[in-house]
Amino acid sequence: MKLVEILLDFIKDTNDRKCKLLEFHHPEHMLTLLDLDLPDTGLPLQTLINDCATTLKYQVKTGHPRFFNQLSCGLDIVSMAGEWLTATANTNMFTYEIAPVFILMESVVLNKMRQIIGWKHGDSILAPGGSISNLYAFLAARHHMFPGYKEKGQAMLGSSQLVMFTSDQCHYSVKSCAAVCGLGTDHCVEVPSDEHGRMIVSELERLILERKARGHIPFFVNCTSGTTVLGAFDPINEIADVCQKYKLWLHIDAAWGGGLLFSRKYRHPRLTGIDRADSVTWNPHKLMGTLLQCSTIHFKQDGLLISCNQMSAEYLFMQDKLYDVQYDTGDKVIQCGRHNDIFKLWLQWRAKGTVGFEEHMDHLMELAEYLVERIENQKDMFHLLLKPEMVNVSFWYIPKRLRTMPHSTAKEAELGRITPILKGRMMEAGTMMVGYQPQDRTPNFFRSIFSSAAVTKTDVDFMLNEMDRLGHDL
Amino acid sequence: MKLVEILLDFIKDTNDRKCKLLEFHHPEHMLTLLDLDLPDTGLPLQTLINDCATTLKYQVKTGHPRFFNQLSCGLDIVSMAGEWLTATANTNMFTYEIAPVFILMESVVLNKMRQIIGWKHGDSILAPGGSISNLYAFLAARHHMFPGYKEKGQAMLGSSQLVMFTSDQCHYSVKSCAAVCGLGTDHCVEVPSDEHGRMIVSELERLILERKARGHIPFFVNCTSGTTVLGAFDPINEIADVCQKYKLWLHIDAAWGGGLLFSRKYRHPRLTGIDRADSVTWNPHKLMGTLLQCSTIHFKQDGLLISCNQMSAEYLFMQDKLYDVQYDTGDKVIQCGRHNDIFKLWLQWRAKGTVGFEEHMDHLMELAEYLVERIENQKDMFHLLLKPEMVNVSFWYIPKRLRTMPHSTAKEAELGRITPILKGRMMEAGTMMVGYQPQDRTPNFFRSIFSSAAVTKTDVDFMLNEMDRLGHDL
Repeated sequence: MKLVEILLDFIKDTNDRKCKLLEFHHPEHMLTLLDLDLPDTGLPLQTLINDCATTLKYQVKTGHPRFFNQLSCGLDIVSMAGEWLTATANTNMFTYEIAPVFILMESVVLNKMRQIIGWKHGDSILAPGGSISNLYAFLAARHHMFPGYKEKGQAMLGSSQLVMFTSDQCHYSVKSCAAVCGLGTDHCVEVPSDEHGRMIVSELERLILERKARGHIPFFVNCTSGTTVLGAFDPINEIADVCQKYKLWLHIDAAWGGGLLFSRKYRHPRLTGIDRADSVTWNPHKLMGTLLQCSTIHFKQDGLLISCNQMSAEYLFMQDKLYDVQYDTGDKVIQCGRHNDIFKLWLQWRAKGTVGFEEHMDHLMELAEYLVERIENQKDMFHLLLKPEMVNVSFWYIPKRLRTMPHSTAKEAELGRITPILKGRMMEAGTMMVGYQPQDRTPNFFRSIFSSAAVTKTDVDFMLNEMDRLGHDL
Repeated sequence: MKLVEILLDFIKDTNDRKCKLLEFHHPEHMLTLLDLDLPDTGLPLQTLINDCATTLKYQVKTGHPRFFNQLSCGLDIVSMAGEWLTATANTNMFTYEIAPVFILMESVVLNKMRQIIGWKHGDSILAPGGSISNLYAFLAARHHMFPGYKEKGQAMLGSSQLVMFTSDQCHYSVKSCAAVCGLGTDHCVEVPSDEHGRMIVSELERLILERKARGHIPFFVNCTSGTTVLGAFDPINEIADVCQKYKLWLHIDAAWGGGLLFSRKYRHPRLTGIDRADSVTWNPHKLMGTLLQCSTIHFKQDGLLISCNQMSAEYLFMQDKLYDVQYDTGDKVIQCGRHNDIFKLWLQWRAKGTVGFEEHMDHLMELAEYLVERIENQKDMFHLLLKPEMVNVSFWYIPKRLRTMPHSTAKEAELGRITPILKGRMMEAGTMMVGYQPQDRTPNFFRSIFSSAAVTKTDVDFMLNEMDRLGHDL
């Protein structure tokens, strides 16, 4: 009960704009502030309670309204309550036998998500993060297109090389599939993207033909709906046409952008054609604000997950059980034990309603539009890299001494140099966090993310003012 | 706060032997008892609270002292409190930047676990379950032994077939590695096991030579420490000798048996030689009673995880950050986002101490010994399949009409037929749960598991008496 008080205090502080969102210390120093020792004999309860308080004291408040750093942020209280219950129930998701209610919830929620994608049938599963969801898609595609690969492996294709395609802006987990699954990253072909970060479809077709000419077997195209850095949407319908023409599996990685499916205003044209995909990754723990982790992977065709992944573990998935074993999900996954990631999402959905998610999406998009507008109105102090399609806003902060300098490659280089310094000052001040990164030939720039329901326009104003307060002399 | 009361009530009931551990309903009927609908508009708070209560009402109490069904059971209250805090902090484990305290905790705990294994150096990571941990081991092995495979894939080896070896008693996730990674399950060679379920090492060597004669490339041997069904331990030292002789990677899947490393009494001879392994899977969420999920994978050699798995996502793992980026773990894993699985383990370790874990292991083993003794003392009513090495006890219950029948294949078949019926009666009675499964030519038998700290000898007595009460007339 004492712990619950500590947790409630943390939640109060998280939502309090007057509280800092972090108290930064370097690792070596942090180690001196904490007692992380694992003792031989147990410690008294009071020490454990202090441990909890100390841990939270130095933890970054990712739910704070001024945490713009990551795709997953915010602290949805209902979803959190759901996770407390999940912990208390402490069950594994492989069979109806031990997780009856949660297994049925998975079925209801995933079915609803497939409907929103635009499918009448299909199958889905929750995975530990979008990277594993993408891996599921890759495995199902290979299994479907090359029956027998599961048993015989690459040997069944002799020296024919399988090849996959994705844009150069995709999440790195797509490339990781090629490494994990034995294709090799050289055979994950990066298709160039345009200045908005969208895949150039004519380049996709050119590269497919190039690989075919080398005797390779193209089979899988990843189309990103909401890229990690720029929030770009690859053109689904055009890519789907190419996939249809060359008989390739179309996977859509909408881990980040999937949430916009709820919004009648923003869904089109970004996600138009998503129902043409063979598989879709969609992470509620990102735009929908569900607690970490909550990632889903959906397939248009039913039956693939089980035929691809089952290893017939007869000790777990017996057919002679008391109940209808088609509800057992354990044989569909490459994990055996599986964390219960459904309850927090189900409860959150009950609390918000489908319309509540739509309002949340529209709110986030409006914040992004507002930030863009604010940046465009202060062109001497900020430089917008591109008009975003999503809630990622990419820009440079310009300190005083550079404001009169015309924009040039040299200026970009200098802005790129000061960006990490300003980020460092933010962390030391503890007042807000905004992520930064370089990209291709563009030096470090800030990428602000709106994903938390707690953010308002005044927080957007604060972000820009605070950058100037901390960085004007750089 | 109302939710906390509901959760505390559930915990009280879980620990109350007078409370049933489940209220069984078939899926179709359960659907009529629950309101799982996802509405368009949000529901009031009171409905959500009722939702929580209803969910727990029909959930199996996996922490109940009479839940003997699964390798993961029990409800360690400190670990649960840790998970509540984890949910409230809701952070992602990829960088020190956003998870400073938790990242340092990972480093301390994993280092301690490597010490217990018997290594001075090395590297480790937490993974979402033992199956993914085993996958990490496979990937690191392939990467280490065939540099360039990550980039070039199987093509670099031409038509040479990679082959892995594991016993026919191993966890199915080992075979799954072969499917996922492109070897094909035909090239995951199942080595026969002896009557105790332990790998026959002469057979391993014979099969290695057989594959070599076919021009294949053996490279990976999985040695199971604590098999899923029988709790058998493959002979590590003998297998390590073979691996040394043929220069193969030795992975030890101690997901289940790893906890016994704490016990001076039971560690040897079961885990003797574990320090000779190249990699070790060890799941605290099993024998140690940490909340789900908590799985670890350890490597003797440092640097492998990162060189194997990094995809150089420059937008996340910049080198020009404010702090020493060697603490960032995100680039070591095939996930990107990663759930915080460390805090609940760290806090639990602080509460129990290393000696507390040892006492827990000894207690569980003593319960298994007690159950074996009780079964052996009632040979007409129970039939022990084998003297166990761990807390898995495998046996048949014999109903009245079969007690005078001499043991035979026909009797085994009949016992195998009634086992699921008795399990069904248990579930309908809701008083306890014990898992069952068939194996090879052995028909269905019960496999009782002791993994929860809540179990006492009286619960063992109860198990046997209750089987007789429910099944004597079968």
